[in-house]
Amino acid sequence: RRGEMAKSTQLIDNEVFRAYATYTAIVLLKMMLMSLITAYFRITRKAFVNPEDTASFGKGESAKKYLRTDPDVERVRRGHLNDLENIVPFVGIGLLYALSGPELSTALLHFRIFAGARILHTFAYLIPLPQPGRGLSWAVGYSVTFSMAYKVLKTAWLL
Amino acid sequence: RRGEMAKSTQLIDNEVFRAYATYTAIVLLKMMLMSLITAYFRITRKAFVNPEDTASFGKGESAKKYLRTDPDVERVRRGHLNDLENIVPFVGIGLLYALSGPELSTALLHFRIFAGARILHTFAYLIPLPQPGRGLSWAVGYSVTFSMAYKVLKTAWLL
Amino acid sequence: RRGEMAKSTQLIDNEVFRAYATYTAIVLLKMMLMSLITAYFRITRKAFVNPEDTASFGKGESAKKYLRTDPDVERVRRGHLNDLENIVPFVGIGLLYALSGPELSTALLHFRIFAGARILHTFAYLIPLPQPGRGLSWAVGYSVTFSMAYKVLKTAWLL
Repeated sequence: RRGEMAKSTQLIDNEVFRAYATYTAIVLLKMMLMSLITAYFRITRKAFVNPEDTASFGKGESAKKYLRTDPDVERVRRGHLNDLENIVPFVGIGLLYALSGPELSTALLHFRIFAGARILHTFAYLIPLPQPGRGLSWAVGYSVTFSMAYKVLKTAWLL
Repeated sequence: RRGEMAKSTQLIDNEVFRAYATYTAIVLLKMMLMSLITAYFRITRKAFVNPEDTASFGKGESAKKYLRTDPDVERVRRGHLNDLENIVPFVGIGLLYALSGPELSTALLHFRIFAGARILHTFAYLIPLPQPGRGLSWAVGYSVTFSMAYKVLKTAWLL
Repeated sequence: RRGEMAKSTQLIDNEVFRAYATYTAIVLLKMMLMSLITAYFRITRKAFVNPEDTASFGKGESAKKYLRTDPDVERVRRGHLNDLENIVPFVGIGLLYALSGPELSTALLHFRIFAGARILHTFAYLIPLPQPGRGLSWAVGYSVTFSMAYKVLKTAWLL
């Protein structure tokens, strides 16, 4: 059993895979942070969507008025959805890319630029920064994922 | 080629990886179930969003009245989106965690608590249960993913 | 170090894993394409959601009128969300399936049908095709993922 376990954990001994694991954990934690920011704005702006969430504010009309949308809450939610749309492809394609045998320096370049771009994107969305700040940070992350997909398809292609 | 194939399928022989595979399949199937529940409520409540989905109810105004939102449909959809926001990080970070060489018992504890919390979260959302039922089940799943991310970063850290 | 790297990149030498990598990259790229189509419709229909995105159209009321929803934009966004809900389970369960030692021909059958069904689903959603076109293509992709999950649970089951 010892031997098996050693074999199957060897992926984590590979430097490219370790870099992938580090950056994937970072961007997924960043995405998870959006839930906390949404909760923060829902509570401070008193803007909820589920009737059971406003029960502590009293019954009937007095609680009903907190069932509303708030621009700040909606903004964080859009940022969260944008994360899902962009971080899911990074995690999936990035794993295949890490297993396709890239140079460590090339892989690190991809992972660092993607993580930096997504962190910038969140700031650009939440502050908000004037365009094209958010657009550019989105495009940079998108391009990095596209570049990794190209390497994956070139290495693995079997249709 | 035989040898290669044997080597690359050995991950599934590792007990921690088998546990990860089992719980990941379970929570992803649970998430997929939300699509069926949404379809069930859309059909029984006659609440659709695409004009082409109401064509079987007749033409013009008689069909148009079914293009509407329904509280039960929206509730399931919010539960589905919450699953995406929380199960995606579990699947991504959980894979890296399973490859970071944890004890089987520790890994099973993480996976079991996460799966249990997400199943409870779905019941709390759909029944709905009074708060803090849904909030607590969400927080437990969130904390488990956070704990796995900590182990991944401690083991793999390469920035 | 050489030896380690060779070992950890061997997954990509396995034919089933190469097929998984190819089809996963294809469906994730297809999902990413939805962002570009959304941007295309937002710009051509002049329908935006963030005030900072309309700043180039002038100030005050003249820009505010472009903060609106557009049926074509909303349609692409629904298609994108449906991709997330269905492609995420495929990527997660498909990886475990590829590692569970299926026959290459069986695996290819699963991957090809899923990718074909999701490409059809996008056309059915965006054209749009009359039902049950979109419904059937959705159900085919869903069933393929379910079939792979069954194989994963049968092979890996450790609760």
